[in-house]
Order: sequence, then structure tokens, then C-alpha cells
Amino acid sequence: MLLRMSTLLLKTLREEPADAEVPSHRLLVRAGFIRRAAPGGYTLLPLGKLVLDRVTAIVQEEMVAAGGQEVSFPALLPREPYDVTGRWTEYGDLLFTVKDRRGVDHLLAPTHEEMFTLLVQDMTGSYRDFPLLLFQIQTKFRDEARTRGGLLRGREFLMKDAYSYDLSEAGLIETYARMRATYQRIFTRLGLEHAIVSAVSGAMGGSASEEFLATAEVGEDTFVGCTVCDYAANTEAVTTPAPPARAVTAPALAVHDTPGTPSIASLVALANERALGGRTDWAASDTLKNVVVTVHHPGREPEVLAIGLPGDREVDLKRVEAVLSPATVTMFDDFDSRPDLVKGYIGPQNLKIRYLADPRVVPGTAWLTGANESGRHATDVVAGRDFTPDGTIEAAEVRPGDPCPACGDGALTMRRGIEIGHIFQLGRRYTDVFKVDVLGTDGKAVRPTMGCYGIGLSRAVAAIAEQHHDERGLVWPATVAPADVHIVAAGKDGQIEAALTLGAALSRAGIRVLVDDRPNVSAGVKFTDAELLGIPRSVVVGRRLDEGYAELRDRRTLERTEVPLADVAGVITRELG
Amino acid sequence: MLLRMSTLLLKTLREEPADAEVPSHRLLVRAGFIRRAAPGGYTLLPLGKLVLDRVTAIVQEEMVAAGGQEVSFPALLPREPYDVTGRWTEYGDLLFTVKDRRGVDHLLAPTHEEMFTLLVQDMTGSYRDFPLLLFQIQTKFRDEARTRGGLLRGREFLMKDAYSYDLSEAGLIETYARMRATYQRIFTRLGLEHAIVSAVSGAMGGSASEEFLATAEVGEDTFVGCTVCDYAANTEAVTTPAPPARAVTAPALAVHDTPGTPSIASLVALANERALGGRTDWAASDTLKNVVVTVHHPGREPEVLAIGLPGDREVDLKRVEAVLSPATVTMFDDFDSRPDLVKGYIGPQNLKIRYLADPRVVPGTAWLTGANESGRHATDVVAGRDFTPDGTIEAAEVRPGDPCPACGDGALTMRRGIEIGHIFQLGRRYTDVFKVDVLGTDGKAVRPTMGCYGIGLSRAVAAIAEQHHDERGLVWPATVAPADVHIVAAGKDGQIEAALTLGAALSRAGIRVLVDDRPNVSAGVKFTDAELLGIPRSVVVGRRLDEGYAELRDRRTLERTEVPLADVAGVITRELG
Repeated sequence: MLLRMSTLLLKTLREEPADAEVPSHRLLVRAGFIRRAAPGGYTLLPLGKLVLDRVTAIVQEEMVAAGGQEVSFPALLPREPYDVTGRWTEYGDLLFTVKDRRGVDHLLAPTHEEMFTLLVQDMTGSYRDFPLLLFQIQTKFRDEARTRGGLLRGREFLMKDAYSYDLSEAGLIETYARMRATYQRIFTRLGLEHAIVSAVSGAMGGSASEEFLATAEVGEDTFVGCTVCDYAANTEAVTTPAPPARAVTAPALAVHDTPGTPSIASLVALANERALGGRTDWAASDTLKNVVVTVHHPGREPEVLAIGLPGDREVDLKRVEAVLSPATVTMFDDFDSRPDLVKGYIGPQNLKIRYLADPRVVPGTAWLTGANESGRHATDVVAGRDFTPDGTIEAAEVRPGDPCPACGDGALTMRRGIEIGHIFQLGRRYTDVFKVDVLGTDGKAVRPTMGCYGIGLSRAVAAIAEQHHDERGLVWPATVAPADVHIVAAGKDGQIEAALTLGAALSRAGIRVLVDDRPNVSAGVKFTDAELLGIPRSVVVGRRLDEGYAELRDRRTLERTEVPLADVAGVITRELG
Repeated sequence: MLLRMSTLLLKTLREEPADAEVPSHRLLVRAGFIRRAAPGGYTLLPLGKLVLDRVTAIVQEEMVAAGGQEVSFPALLPREPYDVTGRWTEYGDLLFTVKDRRGVDHLLAPTHEEMFTLLVQDMTGSYRDFPLLLFQIQTKFRDEARTRGGLLRGREFLMKDAYSYDLSEAGLIETYARMRATYQRIFTRLGLEHAIVSAVSGAMGGSASEEFLATAEVGEDTFVGCTVCDYAANTEAVTTPAPPARAVTAPALAVHDTPGTPSIASLVALANERALGGRTDWAASDTLKNVVVTVHHPGREPEVLAIGLPGDREVDLKRVEAVLSPATVTMFDDFDSRPDLVKGYIGPQNLKIRYLADPRVVPGTAWLTGANESGRHATDVVAGRDFTPDGTIEAAEVRPGDPCPACGDGALTMRRGIEIGHIFQLGRRYTDVFKVDVLGTDGKAVRPTMGCYGIGLSRAVAAIAEQHHDERGLVWPATVAPADVHIVAAGKDGQIEAALTLGAALSRAGIRVLVDDRPNVSAGVKFTDAELLGIPRSVVVGRRLDEGYAELRDRRTLERTEVPLADVAGVITRELG
């Protein structure tokens, strides 16, 4: 490959693009890798396409090495199979739907569990056809409420989705482990520092799932680690260790006038000031905060739900949604319509709506909480005696220092990451729905169990840029760089000619070359552009050309070394190893 | 590459699929290359995906060799740019439209002239940035009224679309010629026998265009050649040579009672029987047939239009639509609502609707035609005297033997083909609309002129299958076959092991190998499957394995030769040369 910048569709920008909030987005636009074409839609320019192609090739190669077989499904599908599994409704607004000329409903498939399962049903008959690992690489469409960060979260993106079918639980676990190892290898080859964290399965359904997060400040996902053990989880998946239930020792519930205390802080201050219940050491964690939310179940009437949690915690709606998925959740704000819900003074006693409590609200715990009358609170409101929640819910924010739910000894630390992969043990959700049965080794019918495995390919490009840049520009890992070497002709005529000759020689040796042969651009601009573009290795053909020397520059370390022109090919070939 | 049939997702079918009308569709389904997933939507199974990937790679390579730069645009685009050019409306029902969650109109772009032109406007500034040749490879969606033939015409297909921008007419012509040559090279490499024919531009707009048609009985396009010169054109693009206008010598128009003659045949019979106008040699070509159609202009009220043509010709609605594009045309059938249009007795005299005539209806020609009264016709109805058409139209069917419009000496011959490529000189339609101007060499603004160039990649797979099969199955050209060699282990155990060993050795040598290592399948079934799958070369590891021999089979010629096992790699490597 020999690309010439004199003809390349490339325009680098000195100024920051106005709509770019994250470094990868800014740099990919400034360096001419991508360009905005539509809301949440980006065009890959030639250099961006080359990077995406290299990322895709690595993923494809590793999937095949793991026994994957590549297929390609239509993206535009009729509604029917998605109605059968309920996902037509569950996906809600995220789904792009399309009516054809006859008015028939179609969707742009977000993922293809239904279709792969129907194909497997169609094309298999017995245990001899299993296990199966199938994948495709396809453009996906999602009607995101908020797109973000260029390729990070768009309405259209390239995805590798894979589906496995095994005949036993042990088989699924083995395939899942192989895919997990394959993903680690893929992300390592892509140069992505990543964490593997426990996750919740969301609209996919199924039992176990893990996310691969590329660590990045700008990541939308927060994940926790433990200071002692190797526990790692998406905050949505963090479970709160419940203390043991205790015997009731508290006196009877007592109601107090607490005017003007709709907030926890004002309540605690007043409780200590008035020594409610004879105590002056009230803390926010002694109070029970009751938050009302509206749960939007797909295809059903919204539900008003109350959530109780220790007063020192905020509700984390992402965690609530993870539990209630596929429903979405918003804060309830129509208190005028519900006189039974006294804003700021709600208690769990005699609530007329469903009430779910934090796992820490175990039987026997006594709380300072609302009395369901304006300006009044109650002390010694005891779980299991004065109220009984309809269930528990992981709704409270996770905080650094919280106890580790895995080992119990360590404390949680928190970091941010970009979700670049997600693997699921789906089990038989889909094979059950479509009644997929094949002949087992014992002559009886057996139902395959399923896994699914996704990688966001275009998002991976953004994640790589996020992890690999400095203040001068992009610094691509050699495995995905748009070229192996960037030859800069510092001056005109002779130097351009020498640069092109060198480029042709390297290209013949199988090296991917970009030559900056622009005749009317200064050396300074060319050097700045080379640093912005971030190809790992530059060769400057400049002042010392006449003496037979070129300068090698390392984009990452910024080191410069002079080498005889004749040695350049050898040095680079050795480096590419 | 080493594929093992024991684990490959493959199920060959002995019976014909019920819904398949054309050979390529039947064979691609039977051989397990594709499978129906939705109306007009096919899944590429592993072998089908491999063929499509090889086709794509050839196209990509030739496009880059021709100076093309690959980019990738979103497929889901906002309506606005397509409103500006009018194509939102012009495309009509073929366009899949999508509303996002905010109710904003989007489309699944059929082609990207608008977006490429806006990108070029955004990223260029002066003559130094030109010429430009950009392309992408993308899944396209079209809401076809009638899908057909598996991959031949689906609602979703893979397309390579390219766009060129030049600063002069001469530049466009040069680029167009380069793309034309590139396409010839591509289709030759794909093994596609093809014709290049003049075409009409349709909804693309622009001046000159040519289609590449893969010759095939089942093709939807009919094209003509000349027995003398090298003229070739799609029937839609055939022009009818107009005879010179003549002086009026005919007597005055005379009306006759002609009861029960609504058809041309009945009219001619009666005219001869009654010697109308003193003649008994009336032929259909002496009559003027007037056909009423409804023209559906996008975004406007339907228009009722009459078309006049010699009575020995039928109207070809595809030709009419090619002229009236982007309008669509149907036969008018609501004569009850129009008492002025007397079905079977319409004449061009005093018509109240627009009337377009065949080019043969030149001034001075006299016709036997309807008198606009039931049961009456008129003789000596003279063009230019008794009626004046509102214009001419190419509406008449083209027939073998018609005079060649290019040389005038030859006669037209007719064949059928599958449209696999289309190239257009668009000119400035799009750069005018978006007012794209760049700095010219003389310091003045210059407006780029545009070409566009498409290849249907998934359709090309079907066209190849259409041209390359026999009664036993597919016969892939070596350039696109899913594998280079198909090794058949005729028996069990030792032969399977030997086949896999040979396969591994060939694979290490860079040969793409499919091994039939199925343990429970008979040799006969394996041979039948090998012929159905159509990989160019088979190696049978069978009876003479113990003596160190294998059998080579040529799929096309069905020739068999025995060679020492040790020579197999050498023979195949030489063949792949």
C-alpha cells in the first residue's frame, strides 16, 4: 500500500471541532479520520476506513481461530420473530422501525438472536451438528436518545455479533470461556487496556454476562474493583451485602412533628436539635429515604413505585433500570395527582403502591422516616414489624469504599470505561421460545443452550484513540495504524522524489506506506500533521538527503535517529517483525 | 484456510426449493450458500459469505488500482439533502423511510450523490484537490415491489458505489473511460461474460450512461445489438430512426362505420373486407394505435396521457417509464370516468389530453385510426394536418430485425442480461444544486463535474452462478470460488486422516481448502455434494490411498486423473499460478 498525501482526501484541522467533547472525537475529526454526516452519524474518511478495516480483520481472524463461522443476515427484518420473543416491544424507542410499501412492520435489527436461532433450527437435526459458533459483521442501527463522542455512541455503528449453540450447560460454559479468552486476545492485539467486569444482561435475557471495558476517563460505564480480591463489576451489577436480620429491640413507632424537613439534611439537623427518641447522634444513614419513581414497562401502563434506601445514599437510576429492564425509569413528579404520597414525608407504612427496599433494610432494622403526613416523621419504624417491603432492589448508588460483595474484606474502588465487548450466557431463552430441539446422543430430543458475544468495532476505533493519544495528536498502536510508516518529504522536488522512491521500495516489501508528497506545504506543517495523524513511525527525507541520510521518528517516544537511507527498509521491516 | 465439512454450517438439499424460479437461486439455496430469512432478504451462509468476500476484494482492489479512495458513509440519513435535490420524492415507493424517536424523517440511502457532494464541498478548496474518485462498499435497502431470484433482486443488497469529481468535461470523460475499463477488468476477473450497453439515466439524472449486463436467459434487462456495427443498448435506450417528413398527398380525412372493431386485428380485417378508402391491402402498420396510460409523477396528481404508435407495435411500459422517469406509468383503465376517451376507437384528432407519438409518426404520414366515436374509424388522418402530437416518445416495443439506429444498415438482435454495473456521467446536477465551487487554476471559481459508478456485489454472485453451472450444480470460476480445492475423503478413518493431513499441507502453502471429512456420509453423497458445491478442483482420497495415489477431478470438464499423493500440492499450486 502506498498512499500519497498529495491526492489523499484529507484535511487536517488546527482548531477543535465545536461539537466534540471527548479527546478521541476531537482528534479523529482534526486528523481527518472521520467527519460528521448526520446527527449521530459519521463518515469514515480514507484513513479512518483503513483503521476500521484493520480492527475488523483482527476480530475476524480471532473469531475464525476460535472456531467461528462467518455468515451475514439481512439487517432489515420483519417484525414477527421479534414479536414472538417480545423484543419488538422490549427494545422500545431504541429500535428503528420501518414500514414497507404494503404497510408491513419491519425493524433494523439491533441484534440477531431470533434469526440465528431460527437458522440453527432450520439447518441442524442432531448432536452431530453441534457445537456451533456463528458470527457476522454488520452495520447496526439504534435510535439513541443521546449520541456521544463521534464513534463512541452513534445511531449507526459496525458490530461483530456472535452466537453459540451447545447441547449442554458444560458446553456453553466451555464456549463462553473460549470466547472470553478470544476477546482478551482481540483487545490486547488492538492495544486496548481493558477490564472484564460482571454485568447485568439487560434486554438480552439470560443468566451470566460480562462486559469488556476499555479504561478511559470519558467512559460512560463506571465499574468497581476490590482492594483485596479480583472482584470487578459494572456498577449496575454490584450487589449490596445484606446484614443479617436482627431481633426487634426497638420501642414502638412514635410520630413526631418535624415541620420544614423535606430533605434528609434538614431532618437530621432537626432530629438532633430536638433529640428525637432521646438521641442526639442521628446521622443520615439512620434515616430511611423513600423515593418515588415511574416505571415505564414496554407496552404497559406506567407504574408508580416507591424505593426505600438509607438516607445517606442517592438513587442511581441506571442501577434501578438494570434491575427493572426492559422497563425504563424516571423520577416521579406528579405529586399533585397522588395526595397519598406526601412529598418529603413519605414513609413505608401503609403505602398504597409497590415498595422495594435496599438490601440493607433487613427485618429488625429501625428507621427514622416519613409519617406520610406533611411536616411529620416517625422514629423506630421497624422493618418486618411496622412495614414489609414487597421485595429488595439494588437502587442505591455505589460508592468508593463500600464493602466488596465478593470477599467481604476489601473496599470497592471505582473507575470509568468504554464498553467495547459484552458476552452473555443466554441459556435457553430463545431456543425455548422457538422450541428448537435436536436429536441427542441417547436418541432423545435435546434443546441447545445459547451464548452471545458482541464487539463494537467502530466504537473500538474510538476507544483506541481515547487510550492512544498525547497533546500532539493520535498515537496509533502498530496493529491498527492506517499505515506502518509515514514518509515526510521535508522539502521540494528532489526530496519528494526520493520520498516517493523510498515509499515505493517499502511498499514492494509489503510495508504500508503514507508519503507526504504535498509540493506546496511547509516542512513544519508536515511534521505537525504527521504527529496529529499518529502513524507509529515517520521517516523524514530532508536536509541530509544529499549525504544519504534520513531521520527516523518514533511517534510515541518522539525519539529521533539518523539512519542511512539504504537502511530504512531494513530497520522498519525488523520493527514490524 | 482449511474448512472441515464435519463442522461447517452446511446442509445441501436434493429437492428444488419451492420459491426459486431461476437456476442461480435454486443452486445457491440447494448448495447451502444462501438461505431465505425474510421476504426479499437472504442470509449468506459460510460458503456464500466467502464468495461474496472474494468478489468484494476484487472490486476493492481494482477500485484502488484505478485511484479510488475508500470511505464509508452512514446508510441512515436525514431527509434534508435528499429534499434539496428532489430525490426524497423522486425515488417514490422504492425508498425505505424511517422516523426517529423525535419524529424526524430519515431514509435508508439508495445511493449517496448528495452526501458525497456535500463532503467534497466541505473538504476541498482548490484545483489542487482534484480530480477525486471516492467509493464505498455498503449494504443498500430498496423497497422493491417484486423481489426476485434470491440475490438477483432483493430488498437488501451489497453495493459498491463510487463518485468522481473532475474540474472539466474532458476530465470527466477521462475518468469515465478509466472506470469503464476498470469495470471490464473487474467483470472479466469475476468470470462474467458481459455486454456494455447504452442506457438511460433514470432517477440519477445526468447525460451519458452505460450498463454492464451479464448475459443470462433469466436476466430482467433486454438489450439489443446490431448485425453490422458495434451498437449495443438497453431496450429502454434504443432510439427509433424517424423517417423524413413528407408532403401531404392524402385526400381529406374520411370517417367510416366500423362496428365491433376495438382491436387492431379486427379493424384491419374489416378495412380490407370493406375496402375502406378503396384499399384492400391494409396492414396493422398502416393503423395508428392510441394507448391511454396514467403517469404517476412523484408528489403530483396522476396525469392521463395518450400515446400514438403504429398498430403493429405494442407499448413497452418499461421504455415509457425510462422516458418519463422519475414518474411511474400504468395502463389507464377508468374509461367510465372519461366519456371523451372512447375505448377502442380513440383517434388523435381533438384529444383533450396530452398526446405523444412514436417517432415514426412524422408530419405527412396518413393513418387509419379511431374517430373518437364508438364503432367508427377514420382514414387519411394525416399527422401535421389533422392532428399535431404534443411531442414524440419512445414507447413502442423494440423487435429483433428493427433497423439499427446507429449505422442504419444493420438489423437489431436481442438478448437478455442481468444488470451488474452502471456508470453515469452525471455532470453538474448535484454540484449545481449544492453550489459547489472551488478555486480554479486561473483564480476563478470552477464547479466540479461528477460521475457515478455502481456495482451490485451480491447480485454479481448470483450472476456468476447463473453463468457458471451445469445440471450437476455450481461451477465457480477459480477467482471467486469459496475454496481452491475440495478434498473428499471417500472412506473412513485412514482416508479421513490422510485427507486432513493433505488439507493441512495445502493450507500451509496458502491454498484455500475445503475437506469433506464427514465420518457418516457415503462416498456417493460426498461426490454429489462436491459437484453441487462447484469448487473448481477436487481431490479424492480413496481406494488407491494405500498405493499412494489420489484422484484429481476438474469440476468444469469432469475430467479425472490419478496423481501420486505427493504431487497433489504441486499440481494445484501450478494451476493457481
